[in-house]
Amino acid sequence: MDATLENLKYDSNGLIPAIIQDHQTGQVLMMAWMNKDSLAKTVETGKTHFFSRSRNKLWLKGESSGHVQDVKSISTDCDKDVVLVKVEQHGAACHEGYQSCFFRTYEQGKEEWTIVGERLFDPKKVYGK
Amino acid sequence: MDATLENLKYDSNGLIPAIIQDHQTGQVLMMAWMNKDSLAKTVETGKTHFFSRSRNKLWLKGESSGHVQDVKSISTDCDKDVVLVKVEQHGAACHEGYQSCFFRTYEQGKEEWTIVGERLFDPKKVYGK
Repeated sequence: MDATLENLKYDSNGLIPAIIQDHQTGQVLMMAWMNKDSLAKTVETGKTHFFSRSRNKLWLKGESSGHVQDVKSISTDCDKDVVLVKVEQHGAACHEGYQSCFFRTYEQGKEEWTIVGERLFDPKKVYGK
Repeated sequence: MDATLENLKYDSNGLIPAIIQDHQTGQVLMMAWMNKDSLAKTVETGKTHFFSRSRNKLWLKGESSGHVQDVKSISTDCDKDVVLVKVEQHGAACHEGYQSCFFRTYEQGKEEWTIVGERLFDPKKVYGK
């Protein structure tokens, strides 16, 4: 692993937040966590890999759905404690069937979030549950 | 505070990551942390407020530099544990003088990150240090 990636500021659990953005539209698709292994795997394969805090394991984005992300660029911020990964998204990013995980928008005074995205696939059909 | 914001998933320190994106260009400007107070203040004033983990206090983005961010929209993701705030950025977002904090890009095999942004101001002049 290159020293640049090795020397990022991982948190006390060895994790760093990764913002995933569509390289063409600029849409922010999701945020997930990477550790050194998943970042190394992302660079090596050209496909995003994350570390799941709930399942305590490395995962390839799209491993179940086929909705993988081809990496176009990797940047970091001034503090080197966040990475921004620009990708080409195959299928849709969100496991709930939306292009982006950020499909809920706030409207002051409303009791519920407003759904702004369009559902592109039925999660039950893709994930079989 | 609206129940929608109250019921976001804050972490064990009461914090939630906030991705800040330029509402017109789509450029990701920065990522910082919010707690309930800073999110409430953000909604109330229409200007982004964050919680500084190193200084252990709430801060108004731009309080020293004048480079405030006018909030255009607030979204959350499928897990409701990240917020995406679209803003109009006054001045530049990064305290190092760049439009975006993500001014360093990875190039495989290089020992240093490649600077891709253009410096828009001299931090010494803006912050007086």
